[in-house]
Amino acid sequence: MAKILVLYHSLSDCTSEMAALVAEGAKSTGDMDVRLVSVAEATAEDMLWCDGVAVGSPTHIGTVSWQLKKYFDQDLIDHWGKIDGKFGCAFSTSGGWGGGAELTCQTITNMLMNYGFLVFGVVDYVSRNHTLHYGAINAKAPRESYAKKASHRLGQRLAEWLAVYVDGKKESHPLITRTEIVPAE
Amino acid sequence: MAKILVLYHSLSDCTSEMAALVAEGAKSTGDMDVRLVSVAEATAEDMLWCDGVAVGSPTHIGTVSWQLKKYFDQDLIDHWGKIDGKFGCAFSTSGGWGGGAELTCQTITNMLMNYGFLVFGVVDYVSRNHTLHYGAINAKAPRESYAKKASHRLGQRLAEWLAVYVDGKKESHPLITRTEIVPAE
Amino acid sequence: MAKILVLYHSLSDCTSEMAALVAEGAKSTGDMDVRLVSVAEATAEDMLWCDGVAVGSPTHIGTVSWQLKKYFDQDLIDHWGKIDGKFGCAFSTSGGWGGGAELTCQTITNMLMNYGFLVFGVVDYVSRNHTLHYGAINAKAPRESYAKKASHRLGQRLAEWLAVYVDGKKESHPLITRTEIVPAE
Amino acid sequence: MAKILVLYHSLSDCTSEMAALVAEGAKSTGDMDVRLVSVAEATAEDMLWCDGVAVGSPTHIGTVSWQLKKYFDQDLIDHWGKIDGKFGCAFSTSGGWGGGAELTCQTITNMLMNYGFLVFGVVDYVSRNHTLHYGAINAKAPRESYAKKASHRLGQRLAEWLAVYVDGKKESHPLITRTEIVPAE
Repeated sequence: MAKILVLYHSLSDCTSEMAALVAEGAKSTGDMDVRLVSVAEATAEDMLWCDGVAVGSPTHIGTVSWQLKKYFDQDLIDHWGKIDGKFGCAFSTSGGWGGGAELTCQTITNMLMNYGFLVFGVVDYVSRNHTLHYGAINAKAPRESYAKKASHRLGQRLAEWLAVYVDGKKESHPLITRTEIVPAE
Repeated sequence: MAKILVLYHSLSDCTSEMAALVAEGAKSTGDMDVRLVSVAEATAEDMLWCDGVAVGSPTHIGTVSWQLKKYFDQDLIDHWGKIDGKFGCAFSTSGGWGGGAELTCQTITNMLMNYGFLVFGVVDYVSRNHTLHYGAINAKAPRESYAKKASHRLGQRLAEWLAVYVDGKKESHPLITRTEIVPAE
Repeated sequence: MAKILVLYHSLSDCTSEMAALVAEGAKSTGDMDVRLVSVAEATAEDMLWCDGVAVGSPTHIGTVSWQLKKYFDQDLIDHWGKIDGKFGCAFSTSGGWGGGAELTCQTITNMLMNYGFLVFGVVDYVSRNHTLHYGAINAKAPRESYAKKASHRLGQRLAEWLAVYVDGKKESHPLITRTEIVPAE
Repeated sequence: MAKILVLYHSLSDCTSEMAALVAEGAKSTGDMDVRLVSVAEATAEDMLWCDGVAVGSPTHIGTVSWQLKKYFDQDLIDHWGKIDGKFGCAFSTSGGWGGGAELTCQTITNMLMNYGFLVFGVVDYVSRNHTLHYGAINAKAPRESYAKKASHRLGQRLAEWLAVYVDGKKESHPLITRTEIVPAE
């Protein structure tokens, strides 16, 4: 049973709502141990514990918040070079579409790559006009159907990759289980 | 009278629709000479001619299309190091929000920086949930009101910066002319 | 026995030299099937065949060359959504340090993420002042000791992750086999 | 007489050494008012004061340090939307080449674009193998000749663009004053 950490910073609860949905998606495959932790409560141990992580931040000035960054710069730094090979992905909310949420996800996956993680986005569309190729993103809180699906799908995909690559369950591969990439709607 | 080039590649007409709106925005201030040129017809001379450029590409596999890139790699390469100091910005359409349009704009502004250009995004929101902080982006063709405004605003802002910095009209500065950053709606 | 593709575009042979070294590194663990293919000769079948890929491009105007991009835009596009879950990494040469090779690697890993790949960089330093956190990079041809090591290490790490995650050989994990992160020199 | 702010965060003095060199370059044209301020001492007023800024950060985990980010997230946030149109550029030191300094510069210029700044890199090479296309970068402290030149050139170019675009001195344009792009060495 692989272990998933959903680690996030949230200021106005938009990102914490996403985080809860990501955690739900991570649990949806039924065979993952999932921890949902805000960066204010997180310790290095949380990251050591997990096999895979979804990291979320509000988009502040086009990239991760300083509060999230501080965790990677300070709390986790003694473990740099000792936790390679975990899996990781990103999510972010911004004030508006075009406001930098993709760039924030890019910074997060860059941070995870720096720690030696294998990172991914998701090919699937969650509505005709919404996808999460570089991580789940949304404008403001994830209240729309597509927004909920995007966060949920990110957690689900993380669970699927861990099932395949950590737990050795090849039948969990999305190429086998996925029924559609772009929903008919 | 400063000169603006709107240069774009389009495969399915989504980006060419944006380009037309960007050109309209560039003309809206009334004192710019504007050329709208697809990359298939563009020559190096177009770039030499202009004081500022808005460059658009469809988001293909999360970044600029090879057709647009070819123009910068081949057609323009003899002028590298000889056209520094122009102004530039970016726009892109993708299949869906979260599909990489911000990353495409980032690649475009990186390409322009490589040629020595000064690049910018736009602070303004064009609806409560839509902005163009790193360039104008949209999911599919720009048919919605916010999508039209985003493209238009990009061209307008380019015209404003050229008015201020090339034509020396300080009264055209958006901090003076702009009435609102986030529309009341 | 997992399968590794080293796919590259090269104009002045700098990137093809890197590619040969990456392929050598990929073979160094002794249990991988390795193909070294230039993008001019590559077909979609090469990508379908592999479990993991190292993709290399010269840094042209701060990002991937149009020739490499064309392969991902055209040759491979029919397989989008059908090849998720492979592993990938990047390498690039540029005219000089600070010339955009990291940005090129970033574009390449973004392209691979778009196709559903799990991507990574390498934590290890190959000399006191050289590492490959986002892919192996170099200024011009990889003739220096550190440059050769960087390319070699990238291929080796790809082989190690495939050994661990595709072939299920947990003893190949770099956290077990790696003796040092920063060489004493 | 235009005003230049060199704003930086430094932990081990590598970035502060760069900052001093950037400030020196900014003064080298003889007609700029230059402030050199560490982020610990900086207030929002510093940014309001300047016409152009060079922002420096150590590369921590592949992007800006949390300390620098905090300034942009908190200290400056009340002025978002009120300081558009300034000019900006970036510099960074990392532990090694390939360690993310280009990505850090990219994050910095993204942050500046978010505040409505016009950002740039430098076309010039400072040695056969070193340039600063996306900002000045170095592995560790800038002690080598090329490293000193890169920081110096960044400040100089910022001064030149401000001379041209803010002070209206067209004769200061690098296309006029620059004697070579790649030094003969």
